[in-house]
Formats: sequence, C-alpha cells, structure tokens
Amino acid sequence: MTVKVGLVGTGTVGGGCIEILRNHKEDFKRHYGIDIELTRVCSRNPEQAIEHGVDDIFTQDYQDIINDPDIDLVIELIGGTGVAKNVILEALGAGKHVVTANKALMATAGEEIFAKAAEKDLEVAFEASVGGGIPIIGPLKHSLIANEISSIMGIVNGTTNYMLTRMEEAGLSYDEALREAQDRGFAEADPTADVDGLDAAAKIAILSSIAFNSRVTMDDVYAEGIRNLNPVDIAMAKDMGFAVKLVALAYRSDEGVAVRVHPTMIPLEHQLATVNGVFNAIFAVGDAVGETMFFGEGAGSGPAASAVMGDVLEVCRHIQMGIKPIVGCTCMDELPILSMEDAKYKYYLRFVVADRSGVLAATANIFAKYQISVQSVTQRGTKARNAVDLVFLTHTAEERNMRQAIDEILALEGVVMGGEPSVIRVVD
Amino acid sequence: MTVKVGLVGTGTVGGGCIEILRNHKEDFKRHYGIDIELTRVCSRNPEQAIEHGVDDIFTQDYQDIINDPDIDLVIELIGGTGVAKNVILEALGAGKHVVTANKALMATAGEEIFAKAAEKDLEVAFEASVGGGIPIIGPLKHSLIANEISSIMGIVNGTTNYMLTRMEEAGLSYDEALREAQDRGFAEADPTADVDGLDAAAKIAILSSIAFNSRVTMDDVYAEGIRNLNPVDIAMAKDMGFAVKLVALAYRSDEGVAVRVHPTMIPLEHQLATVNGVFNAIFAVGDAVGETMFFGEGAGSGPAASAVMGDVLEVCRHIQMGIKPIVGCTCMDELPILSMEDAKYKYYLRFVVADRSGVLAATANIFAKYQISVQSVTQRGTKARNAVDLVFLTHTAEERNMRQAIDEILALEGVVMGGEPSVIRVVD
Repeated sequence: MTVKVGLVGTGTVGGGCIEILRNHKEDFKRHYGIDIELTRVCSRNPEQAIEHGVDDIFTQDYQDIINDPDIDLVIELIGGTGVAKNVILEALGAGKHVVTANKALMATAGEEIFAKAAEKDLEVAFEASVGGGIPIIGPLKHSLIANEISSIMGIVNGTTNYMLTRMEEAGLSYDEALREAQDRGFAEADPTADVDGLDAAAKIAILSSIAFNSRVTMDDVYAEGIRNLNPVDIAMAKDMGFAVKLVALAYRSDEGVAVRVHPTMIPLEHQLATVNGVFNAIFAVGDAVGETMFFGEGAGSGPAASAVMGDVLEVCRHIQMGIKPIVGCTCMDELPILSMEDAKYKYYLRFVVADRSGVLAATANIFAKYQISVQSVTQRGTKARNAVDLVFLTHTAEERNMRQAIDEILALEGVVMGGEPSVIRVVD
Repeated sequence: MTVKVGLVGTGTVGGGCIEILRNHKEDFKRHYGIDIELTRVCSRNPEQAIEHGVDDIFTQDYQDIINDPDIDLVIELIGGTGVAKNVILEALGAGKHVVTANKALMATAGEEIFAKAAEKDLEVAFEASVGGGIPIIGPLKHSLIANEISSIMGIVNGTTNYMLTRMEEAGLSYDEALREAQDRGFAEADPTADVDGLDAAAKIAILSSIAFNSRVTMDDVYAEGIRNLNPVDIAMAKDMGFAVKLVALAYRSDEGVAVRVHPTMIPLEHQLATVNGVFNAIFAVGDAVGETMFFGEGAGSGPAASAVMGDVLEVCRHIQMGIKPIVGCTCMDELPILSMEDAKYKYYLRFVVADRSGVLAATANIFAKYQISVQSVTQRGTKARNAVDLVFLTHTAEERNMRQAIDEILALEGVVMGGEPSVIRVVD
C-alpha cells in the first residue's frame, strides 16, 4: 500500500522535506517497507514550487488537498495561528493524519487540535515544533515515560543563541549582533518572536505539557527576551564563571509547575554553557534516568525537515499496518502554574551609578530592607565620566522582593544614572 | 487488559525496574492507560528478591516464567551470552515479547534473536543495551529514519570515562584510577570488558547495525582499550588542545563501514570533550539533521532501569492495542567492514628515548620513509636520567604505515628506552 501525502507550505522546511523524499524514497521502501508518495503540494508561491521541481502536483488552494480522498496525511508547514489552524482542523475533519512543525499553534490551540484528532481517531505529530532536528518529543513520549520528569531546561531558540554567542565572542552590541544574524539569515526582518522570547515560550509550553502531563499554554509562560542584554554583562558573567543564555525552563514542585523564558547565567561547566551559535539543546531530569541532554541544530531546512519526515514516516508505518494512534494527548493532570512573583533565584544586577561616596551604602540598605543578601559587589569604570558600573551578585532572593528593591534603588535621588539595570537570573 | 510481565535477573538494573513499578504503576495507568503487573521474578539469589520485596513472586528457575501462559513479556537482565540467550530464545519460542539490556548478546547473536522474533511475530526491545538511560536506539529507529546516518561517535563506557577523567583531573596513574573506580563501584573486580574496550565494542556494533542498516557484530569491531594510557599523555594532549577519551566510532564510506573503539584525542571544543565522569554521550551525523548528540548517565540502577522500563511500557502499549511489531531488524544491506590497516588518522606518539643527539634525526628518517608527515615534535625531560619523552603529532597517515614505522623505530639500536610508545589517534 502506498501512503499518499499532501504538503502545505513550500518554504525552507517544506523544501527540505521534498529534498528528503527525492533522495531517500527508495531507501524508505527497502529498509522500512514504507511506501510513500507526495501527491500534492500547496503554496501561495508558484515560484517556490517550480524551484523545488513539484510544479506538476502544485496547487495554490489547500482545499485541493483537503478534498482529495486519496490523501492519507497532510503536512502543515505554513506556520502561524491563522490559516494553519484551518488547514489542520479541516484535514482532521476530512479523516487525514497531520504532521506539523507549528509551535505557536500547538502551544495555543493544542487542546482543540488533540480533541479533534481523538474524535476522529487520527494522529497529530509535531516533533519539529521544538528543537529543529533534535529528537525530543519522541523520547519524552516514548523512551522516558518510565520517569517522573522533574525539570526541563533548554536553549531552544537558535537566533538568540547565535546573537549571544557573537556578543560574547566578539563583544558585539545587541544591535550589531541582530544585524549580523539578519545578514546571515538566522533572524527575520521582524525579530520580535525570537528576541522577546515568544518562540522559546511556545516551545517550553509544548515540552512542559508532555513532561508534566498537564496542559501548559503559551499564556502560562513568563517570557523575557534579550533586548536589554549588554556585552558588558556577558563579559562580567564570564569573569564570574558563567555563560549567559536565553534559557527556557520548567520545573515541577509540590505547589505546581513553573514555566519560564529569560536570560540566565549558567555555570561554565554546565553542559548547556557550551551550546553555541545556532545549536539548540534540551536538558531533562527524571527520577530514574537522572540528567539527560539532547543536542543538535535547532533550525534550518535539513534539521527541521528531518524531524518532520521522521514523524511522517512513523505515521506512514502506522497507516500501512492499520494501527490506530498509540499516544495522543497525555495532559491528564491539572497542575497549577506558579507565579513569577513567587520565584526564587540568585540575581546578577548591574546599575550605572554616580561615581561618588554613599552610593553603595544607599543601595545596600535597600537590599537589606528586602532581605536580599548580597554575595559579591564589584565596581568598575565606564566610558561615561562620573559614572561607574555597580555589579551585584545576590544570594537566593524572592522575585517579588527583588522587583521592589530595584524600584526603590531607581527612585534614589542622584544615584542611578543609566536607567533600568541589567538583571540576569542565575541558575546553578 | 493487564499485561503480565516476568523479570529474570535481580541485580542493580532489575532492582531499579522493580522500584520504578512500585513508584509509578498508577501513573502509567492514569497517564498512558498502561496496566502492567509484575507477575514473576527469577533470580539465582533469593536474598536479592527479599531485599526488593518480591519474595512472594520469586523463583530460582526461569522455566517457571517461560512456562507461565499468562506472562506476555519477559525482561532479561542477567547479562552475558550463556543462560541469557536461552532465556530470550525460549521466551520468544513460548510466544512472549522480550526486553533486554544485554549488549554482549545483542552484538553477537542479534541475527538469530531477531529471526526468532520475526518468525513468532514478537518484539525484542533493547534500548538499555547502549548508553544506559540515554534514549538512542529509539531515536535511531524512529525520529531519525528520514536521514542517511554517515557517522556515529560516542563515549559509551562509563567506567573508562570515569578513569580517564580522574587521570586528567588528578594525574592518577591507570592503576590508581582503576582502584578508585573499583572502590566507588564503577568498575568490576575483573575490569577486562570495560578497560579493553569490549563493552564499548558491543555497543558500537549495535548502534552501527541500526544506523547503517547493515549487520555489524562484535567481531567486526577493532577494539583497543585504555590499559596503556599514561597521565603524561593526557596532560600533553590537554596542552595541545585535546581531551583523551575512549571513543567508539563508526562511519560509512563508499567502500564500506568502519567500526572501531580506541583511545582518541578530540578537540577541547568538541561537545564530547566535556563529557566527564560516568556520563555517556553519543554523537550522530545525518544528511538532513546534521550533528546531533544524546547525553546522560551511562550506567547505574536508575538510568538503565529507565531505558528497560521505557521499552517495557512501549511493548505493553502494543500488546494492549493488539499491535504487531512495528520495527524489527532493519539490516537489509550488506556493507563490507573496512580494515583497520587501511584506516587513516592523525597520530599522537610518545616514545621514551635516550637523551643524546641523533635520536630525532633517526626517528624522523623512518617517518619520512613511510610518508608520515610530522606536524609537531616536542621533547621533554622525564624522571629517568638519560631519557626524554619524544612526542610527535603527525598529519594524516595510514595505519599500516604507522605500524611499520613504529616497529622500525623500536628496532633502532640504543634509541627507545621505554618499550612500546603511547599511541593515540586524533579525530578532529
């Protein structure tokens, strides 16, 4: 039996999928007995279809795929939460399995999509939605299910990781790093989703839902991006023995689950600290397996297509063997989301302050008032005359207290000269 | 439907499995609908059964499990290629699925076991045979199948990695590192399988068979262990920018596949270079996914039991749903094994030589004769009077030539004073 597949979206990842099928169709048959045929390709852009050599099966109307009764499986690669959602829900409605790379959609409308799939006894696979080519959803839904997962910590956005790597290596400013990432095709013209941590938030929402068996949506995630990071802070952190990464993290406690994205200082010895450039890595801790990490290329045509086509081939196997979905949604529990205000971290803080006596005492008094204990304080000159960098590393403190302390320090008369301080949370 | 499971072997890993079932039986039912019951436990050792609280279902005769018609699945955890093979083949013969952690057996008798399983339409799962708790066989058999895998490189033996880490960190000798590993329970009284690279050889044979779709058995693997490694070499390597690891590697070329285990110098920036202590990591390269790595604890009760029970739960899912085996043996191709003599590497070599003029010229002449180009040579004093360390780093050379050159250098009169040289292959 030949499984017939329709593809919606012919951008980078779609092109990669067409490429894989062209190169390995015969291997899939010989090694795995999987007989797969790309029957129809939909795109807004006829030139892309010609470029990928699929003009003979091309359409601009995705309904041609939904309405084709021979198509068993639809690959959705247009992204976003608009048309993509219609494509997926209509494909399921028409009795077709779905494979998607759409993190934003799975992190916001996952429940609705899974409900529809369950109602129709169909599969929805989405390995490519997190970590590009890195197998992580498969391992979490299969290999690691004997564990209770206690935490997940990942570098899941290649764009920002590239920028931070360049800021560290070459001392680039945020703006310079962004421009370079855009020039090299690692960042989009509108970089908001990446640099504000929204892309990472969608991914950690998906991973948390699977790991903790409890629905986490994008709205549940506290997300802070890298716009305010300064190469000075990255260099200071390195001197203190830390790397600065945009980390997506989630953990479970007796009170609920914490799901967050923010710039984070991690010890240089930590496995995640050496994940540089566009690479991604996801670190998971389970009660039996202990620490485990998955590393690879987080974006790009090949890696994402590897994940999409891995899902496609797996669903094809099931279709050929007449196997009903083995694992659907596993969000059976309803764990509360812990508020950011209650979070506890060590903090790195850098204020630009007036270079005069009494400033340290004034700030130290405020920390003391909010029970924030300071581990170290360093003062260094800046380019500006009459101003110095005042850098604090604190012991563990409550986010609520830290925010109030910062507000009070900013309100001190004639003390802070550089506006908002740099705030980086420390995880060690 | 309750799936009934029999366990053979109550050592470290068996104990870990019993523990997981005790802690998470209800979670498996609630989250995944998997209803599993440990029905019978076999061990040579009644005290272990009592210790694990399974004396009520205990037997010393594995036939009690084979002959129990209610048991659907047998977990084999006794290890070795003797009784374990009978347990597995008899279990399959009696119509029971098998989960095993037995690398030596899978790397030698895999073909026979898979044939028996295929004949009876049963599953054989063996995730725990490689990399402890790290999901690697699952990803290779599922998530990554859209790729042609070109190479695999791994640190897959925790004992030797612990020893090498201690030799590097603390300058311990091989003997001291071994004694410490034994004291801490990381090495057995007879460490042969670990230190001579046989354990790693079995693991890379298994991974290669899956990655290259071609049967590789333990006999096909060139294996060299760490007995001859000296902390001096590890320190020298570090100065040159390399870590020394016992690496299992396999790659595919147009001529066939190379499958090898040997001490290896890898650049300090490589992801594998920072995998220390008892941790394992497996690095795989695919044509679509690019570089990907899987990291975690390579041994111990919890990690190995995580992998075993992950397999058990997956097979249980299939049994409950009446699903026939989805993936069996995929060794459809018959690729030749490349000989070690034809291998090409850069080499690190350290000879202890007489401290007199003419020695460097004599050795250099021999390298030249065998077309071995030297990248750098360093001479350093040793503790012994009249002797110095002569350390070469070569450009890429053929193993065959290198062996002949070493033999000729050893035969030079009055030159080499320290016996066999240290030879470490460099992969960069």
